Amino acid sequence: MCPSPRDASDPQLQEAMDAARAAVDATMDRLLPPANGGMAEDKLCAAMRHGVLAGGKRLRAFLTLECAHLFGVDASRARRAAAAVEFVHCYALIHDDLPAMDDSALRRGQPAVHRAFGEATAILAGDALLTLAFEVIADPDTHEDPRVRCALVTALAQAAGAHGMVGGQMLDLLGEHTAFDLGTISRMQRMKTGKLMAFACEAGAILGRASLPHRRALAHYAFDLGLAFQVTDDILDVEANEEEAGKPVGADAAAGKATFVSALGQAQARERAEMLAEQATTHLHIFGSRAEALERLARYVLERRA
Amino acid sequence: MCPSPRDASDPQLQEAMDAARAAVDATMDRLLPPANGGMAEDKLCAAMRHGVLAGGKRLRAFLTLECAHLFGVDASRARRAAAAVEFVHCYALIHDDLPAMDDSALRRGQPAVHRAFGEATAILAGDALLTLAFEVIADPDTHEDPRVRCALVTALAQAAGAHGMVGGQMLDLLGEHTAFDLGTISRMQRMKTGKLMAFACEAGAILGRASLPHRRALAHYAFDLGLAFQVTDDILDVEANEEEAGKPVGADAAAGKATFVSALGQAQARERAEMLAEQATTHLHIFGSRAEALERLARYVLERRA
Repeated sequence: MCPSPRDASDPQLQEAMDAARAAVDATMDRLLPPANGGMAEDKLCAAMRHGVLAGGKRLRAFLTLECAHLFGVDASRARRAAAAVEFVHCYALIHDDLPAMDDSALRRGQPAVHRAFGEATAILAGDALLTLAFEVIADPDTHEDPRVRCALVTALAQAAGAHGMVGGQMLDLLGEHTAFDLGTISRMQRMKTGKLMAFACEAGAILGRASLPHRRALAHYAFDLGLAFQVTDDILDVEANEEEAGKPVGADAAAGKATFVSALGQAQARERAEMLAEQATTHLHIFGSRAEALERLARYVLERRA
Repeated sequence: MCPSPRDASDPQLQEAMDAARAAVDATMDRLLPPANGGMAEDKLCAAMRHGVLAGGKRLRAFLTLECAHLFGVDASRARRAAAAVEFVHCYALIHDDLPAMDDSALRRGQPAVHRAFGEATAILAGDALLTLAFEVIADPDTHEDPRVRCALVTALAQAAGAHGMVGGQMLDLLGEHTAFDLGTISRMQRMKTGKLMAFACEAGAILGRASLPHRRALAHYAFDLGLAFQVTDDILDVEANEEEAGKPVGADAAAGKATFVSALGQAQARERAEMLAEQATTHLHIFGSRAEALERLARYVLERRA
């Protein structure tokens, strides 16, 4: 197979990310309810599977796996936590794409769940995925120590809830009607993208019973990485073509949404992304050379085309 | 204050239910994020509070409190679990009322959340409430033993997920286009209403580290009670007036939905509700006279007018 254009930038990282994606995809496939169980709710399960398994970079899953690896966590446990993070991310995308929200027809180059299965089923599929995420991390297969499992449940709920991801989505919607300043855009993205990315990293640390300084270092890394990722996303929304992005582009501007590009302009936004990616790696010094993949990832999020 | 008509049937039970409602309402009020925090996400918090605190019988909370009491569980812990159950119930109602689902303008005599706050905010408020429920039960204040807390998370996720409440809602939607037989209607309602009611009861048993036979007895009670409740709901949807019900009536028939009344007729549906309520109480014999309030509740669900 010919490498895609972005493979050229860091083939070693790309290979690690591809391996992580394949492993976590297999875990998710196993954890998702079958869609051919002959049950009346098969349609719901099919929608959940479509929303999760129809592509995706699995960046968050990669973060969980890499961070868990830093603390010697068993890979099968890390994959379960990574799957839970991706279930939450996918549920958020399904609800985000709904007509009442971003009204996006395409996701990852495929029809959005509500286009493929109808709006009501998409709402329910998102609900069921969020619920499944908590079921997966509370299971003894994720960790034998119930204190660790409870710590994961608490951290995930706080990352995903009203003062985390969902609150960030609320701000994102309000941004369509309000001229947000840069501080508010940053806070919105910290909540909308950063908190779940931070949980993705912290989950690895929690599974490995890491010390608080290690856990905090990874959370700070994730917040900077998440912002760098989001600034790049805003730039891509202006620059990329739809085929590369796998979703409609220019949608933010069309919706009048406050983005880093609208607040800073493209050139300054690019500079800020580079600064954030650089800053992200400084938090990793506590791990010496062991966190090399996470360092490379900070460069990757700047250079990605989708 | 004059007693409402339904108070006449069992003033003692009504008093206990009113006290439980007041106590759990106060707990929920404290657990919900404030809507006047001066944060950009205040609107989301206001929608969550509207969806939870604008009325409701708190039947599920009463079940949790009564079942917890059977095992000597500290009341403040029981109230937290009860609040989590009601958060899940309220999130389901908010999503159920959306235009893409049942399209209901009224809930508990108040505008549905999407009418008061808009559709996007209603979707997010439901998402945030489901998330909050897991955060509440994973907190050490709910129980000092993390094994107990994990057991609660697992049982709630299974009750609320794709093969529980959300799966039941999927079936309910499919029922608009398919002529369900009585068996399928029963299964749908067992999933849609029964499983969360069973969790409401089991939560009390889990908090009290009850034996499996005790936990099972309460789950069976809850399933029969839930079905009796639902059959009565279907009858009320045909018989009641909108003011009493606090929500639009006749909506199921208008949507062509499969209900116990459409499958059995009113008279047979009434008989079935009575049989189920009677059967529910037989599971309580294991508790002797200590479960008297739960026995009375089975009669109450038949005689309620809303």
